[in-house]
Amino acid sequence: MVMSQTDLEAQIQQKIDFKTKPAGSLGMLEHIAFQIANVQQTLSPELSKPHIVVFAGSHGIAKEGVSAYPAEVTAQMVLNFLNGGAAINVFARQHEIELVILDAGVDFVFENDKKPVDAKVGFGTQSFLAAEAMTAEQCAECFTSGAAIVKDIRETGCNVIGFGEMGIGNTSSAAVIMSKLLDLPIAECVGKGTGLDATQLENKLSVLQNALTFHEQVGNDPMQILRTFGGFEIAMMCGAMLEAHRQNMIVLVDGFIASVAFLAAFKMNNKIIENAVFCHQSDEKGHRLLLQKLNANPVLQLNMRLGEGTGCAVAYPLIKSAVAFFNEMASFDSAQVSQKTA
Amino acid sequence: MVMSQTDLEAQIQQKIDFKTKPAGSLGMLEHIAFQIANVQQTLSPELSKPHIVVFAGSHGIAKEGVSAYPAEVTAQMVLNFLNGGAAINVFARQHEIELVILDAGVDFVFENDKKPVDAKVGFGTQSFLAAEAMTAEQCAECFTSGAAIVKDIRETGCNVIGFGEMGIGNTSSAAVIMSKLLDLPIAECVGKGTGLDATQLENKLSVLQNALTFHEQVGNDPMQILRTFGGFEIAMMCGAMLEAHRQNMIVLVDGFIASVAFLAAFKMNNKIIENAVFCHQSDEKGHRLLLQKLNANPVLQLNMRLGEGTGCAVAYPLIKSAVAFFNEMASFDSAQVSQKTA
Repeated sequence: MVMSQTDLEAQIQQKIDFKTKPAGSLGMLEHIAFQIANVQQTLSPELSKPHIVVFAGSHGIAKEGVSAYPAEVTAQMVLNFLNGGAAINVFARQHEIELVILDAGVDFVFENDKKPVDAKVGFGTQSFLAAEAMTAEQCAECFTSGAAIVKDIRETGCNVIGFGEMGIGNTSSAAVIMSKLLDLPIAECVGKGTGLDATQLENKLSVLQNALTFHEQVGNDPMQILRTFGGFEIAMMCGAMLEAHRQNMIVLVDGFIASVAFLAAFKMNNKIIENAVFCHQSDEKGHRLLLQKLNANPVLQLNMRLGEGTGCAVAYPLIKSAVAFFNEMASFDSAQVSQKTA
Repeated sequence: MVMSQTDLEAQIQQKIDFKTKPAGSLGMLEHIAFQIANVQQTLSPELSKPHIVVFAGSHGIAKEGVSAYPAEVTAQMVLNFLNGGAAINVFARQHEIELVILDAGVDFVFENDKKPVDAKVGFGTQSFLAAEAMTAEQCAECFTSGAAIVKDIRETGCNVIGFGEMGIGNTSSAAVIMSKLLDLPIAECVGKGTGLDATQLENKLSVLQNALTFHEQVGNDPMQILRTFGGFEIAMMCGAMLEAHRQNMIVLVDGFIASVAFLAAFKMNNKIIENAVFCHQSDEKGHRLLLQKLNANPVLQLNMRLGEGTGCAVAYPLIKSAVAFFNEMASFDSAQVSQKTA
C-alpha cells in the first residue's frame, strides 16, 4: 500500500496529538517535530551526525571602514576556531556537533598542522564599491565547492547540517544582497554588525549606497547578485544549502548572513524552505525583517549577533527535544491517561 | 585581600568582554553567565547535579468545571512521570537532569513499587469557591516539606534546581493568587489552561470571580493568599524556592504556575530574584504580564503551555552554554585576535 503525502501528514499530526499532553502544548517543538518527520517521510525521525560548517572569507569592502574590526581578524578567528577557543567551538563541543572550518577565501596562507578545509577561491573578494566582488568563474567555484563539502559530510551519515560564517565586512555584503533580492531600501537592511557606533554606521550606509549606485544595472538574478557583492563564504554557503536540500538534509539556518545566503538559495529553489529550521533571530537590524519576509519563525531570540553558526549550535538541543518527544513520549492510550472531556 | 562585590562584578564583566567576540554579541547568554558567576561569587562558575522537582497536587476547584481535563488526570500523570512517559521525562533524560516526582497532595493512594516522593499534605485541597483551600497547618506543612526536599537535594551536590508542577485545576489557583498578589483584575490573569474553549473560559472566569467575592477579606499576605486559594503543590513550590535561595542555588523558574509560586516567594523575600532564571514564557495568558511585573526576561518563548518543569528542562542547555562560554572561550589576548579599532 502506498501512503499518500496527506495520509502521512495526518499520521504525524495524530502521533503528536495523542501524546500525553494537551494538544498543541509543546508549541514550536510540535511544529519542528512535524517538519522533520515530514522531511524524512517517517513516523520515526532521527537526527544523525549533526555538523556545522563555518565558511570563512575575506572581503575587499572591509577596507572601506564598514566594520568595527580590522580585516585580519577573519584569519585570526579561523586560527581561533582551529584551536578550539571560539564560541562556536564551545557550543559544538557541548552538543557533540561535528565542526568543520572551511577556508572559502581568506586573505591568509594557513601553514600550520592545523588547517581549515581548503576551498579557497581567492585571497578575499574585490571591494564591490567599484568592481564586482568576484568573477563569474569564482562564483561558480563557490557553488561547486559548497556542494562538494556537503556531499562529503552527507556520506558520513549526517542528516542535519548547520551553516555559519566568519568574514569581517560580511554584514555589508549581506545587507546589499538582501536589499537587491527583496527590493528593499538598503537602510532597512543595514545594521551595526560587530558593533559600529552611529557615525560609523552612517559611513557604512553611505558606502553601500554608493556601491548600489555603481552597480545599478545588476538586475535581480540571485547568482549575479552574489557575484557582484560577494563574499566567497556567502556564495559557497548558498551552494552548500542547495546541496543539503538535494540530499534531503535538515538545514539549520543561523543568523543574518547565513539567512541572506539562504534567501539567495530560496530564490533559486523555494522548496528549500521545507527543510529549513531558522535557529535564532539575530540582533543585527535586517535579520528580523528578512525572517518576516520568509515567514520564518525563529526558534530562539537571545539577542545574539555573533554568527559562526552559534545560533544553530545553541538551538540544536531544542531541535533534538522536538524529535525526542515525538519518538519517546507515551500516548494517552499507552499511559492510560484520560483525555480531554469536551 | 578582600574583594568587594563591585570588584568581582567588574572582573566578571571584564572576563565576558575579553572573550573573542564583539562585546555583547552573545546577548542573553552573557547576562546569564554574569548572573551565575555573581551568585556563586566566582570567576569559575559551575552547574552541578541539576535537578527538577515536579510537585503534584489535586485541586478541589477542579470539580467546578474550570479545566478541560478530568481531575483524575493529576494522579494518572504522576504515574506517567514515574513510568518515564511524559514530556518532562524525555527532556530531563536528554539533558541528564535528575527528575524528582513529589506527591504534594494528590487525591490518590500510590501503591506500586514506583511511588512519588511522599510529601502528601492531604488528598487534594478544598474547593476555594466557598472555603479555604487548606488549613493554616497544612499550608505550614507545605513550606516545611518544600524546604526539606530542597535541603535533601542540595546535599547531593546540586546547585541548580528547577521546579515544575502537575495539578488539574491549578491555573485557576495560580490566576487568583496572581490577581491578589499583584492587585490585578482577575480577567487579566485567567487563561485557557490545558485548552478551554471560549464558553468554558467564561465559566472559569465566573467561578474565579465568585471565589474572589467570597474571599473578599483575604488581605494581601502571601501566605494567607496561598492558604486560601491553594494548591498544595503551589505552596510547597514556594517554600522550596525560598529554601533554594537560602542554599544559594540557581533557581530555574518554569511556566505560569511555577512563576506564581515564585511571585509569592518574591513577595516574602525579593532577594530571591537574584538567583532566578526565567526559563520560558508560557502561552498561558497571565504569564507574559507576570514576567513583565517581575522585570523578567525569559530565555525561551516557544509557545509551550505544559508545565511539568518542561520549560526549565528545555532551557537548561542554554544555561549550560552561558557557563561554558564563560569558562572555555579564549580571550583576545590568549588567541592573539585583534580588538575593535575604535
